[in-house]
Amino acid sequence: MMSRPAVHPLDSSSTTIEAPAVPTVRMKDFQGMPGTTGGLLLRLCQFGFAVISLCVMATTSDFPSVTAFSYLVAAVSLQCLWSLLLAIADIYALSVRRSFRSAGLVSLFTIGDGITSTLTFAAACASAGITVLIGNDLDRCNVNHCKRFMSATAMAFLSWFSVSPSFFLNFWSLASQ
Amino acid sequence: MMSRPAVHPLDSSSTTIEAPAVPTVRMKDFQGMPGTTGGLLLRLCQFGFAVISLCVMATTSDFPSVTAFSYLVAAVSLQCLWSLLLAIADIYALSVRRSFRSAGLVSLFTIGDGITSTLTFAAACASAGITVLIGNDLDRCNVNHCKRFMSATAMAFLSWFSVSPSFFLNFWSLASQ
Repeated sequence: MMSRPAVHPLDSSSTTIEAPAVPTVRMKDFQGMPGTTGGLLLRLCQFGFAVISLCVMATTSDFPSVTAFSYLVAAVSLQCLWSLLLAIADIYALSVRRSFRSAGLVSLFTIGDGITSTLTFAAACASAGITVLIGNDLDRCNVNHCKRFMSATAMAFLSWFSVSPSFFLNFWSLASQ
Repeated sequence: MMSRPAVHPLDSSSTTIEAPAVPTVRMKDFQGMPGTTGGLLLRLCQFGFAVISLCVMATTSDFPSVTAFSYLVAAVSLQCLWSLLLAIADIYALSVRRSFRSAGLVSLFTIGDGITSTLTFAAACASAGITVLIGNDLDRCNVNHCKRFMSATAMAFLSWFSVSPSFFLNFWSLASQ
């Protein structure tokens, strides 16, 4: 059913003499998987949203006084690092025209995506809970940076939202191998 | 590669005459998947933890004043309903000795598990953020039901923790079909 080129970028090692114009189609390379342009775009989105969230939250003076906000800063920092690392890996894969096919690498990516996305989502939810508590329930936006907290939370959610496709595509390709 | 019995519980419709003692092995029935004893146990765990979380949070008098706690009550109620429904389906499947093999049903279970577990996890994280804010950052446990908030949050986390295996097993079996 699936004849996947495990390591070799070109499949021209067959013994046929005719048909030299076979395109270098890599099977089951959905856009969004590691080593594709879509995957690189997803990584850049994750990185961008996480960086914005980090910057917005870190520039509020009173974020260290709330545990959940400090945790958000830590979680999106990790997300930044991870997404940047995988974006670099994607750029390398695209530049040498290879794709990641080994099960070991794909499981590593899946586990990493799972962990970082869970942490980012948890941090975003905790921050959202506290932002809503300050803004709606206690109505103390006059003495707090409600808008900045909200923006940082929203960006963290967007970052999580763009990690999810990477995670599910990796998990799917791992399970269907 | 995989010859899975789609609907039929017995595979005795082949034309062989010998070998009548072939056991009724259903392929790829990991414990924990719907229609197995492990799956039923997971469902009962989810249901139990969600019910405890719901009861503990609902008996605090001031939960409606905090949005995140009201949301927790709503999310674990949904989790209760969903887990109870699937526990009943599992009991039925076990009693008639069939297993859920159709891709439609498994995708329904996967999507339902994904939605309820995400909602429960989000509610648990938001409640945890606020509980830590009240307890550690503001140090106002003397006027709040900190212990009850903590217990309800912990139970919601445990409920989420026991939904995850169901979700991943369903997703895996869907992808490897």
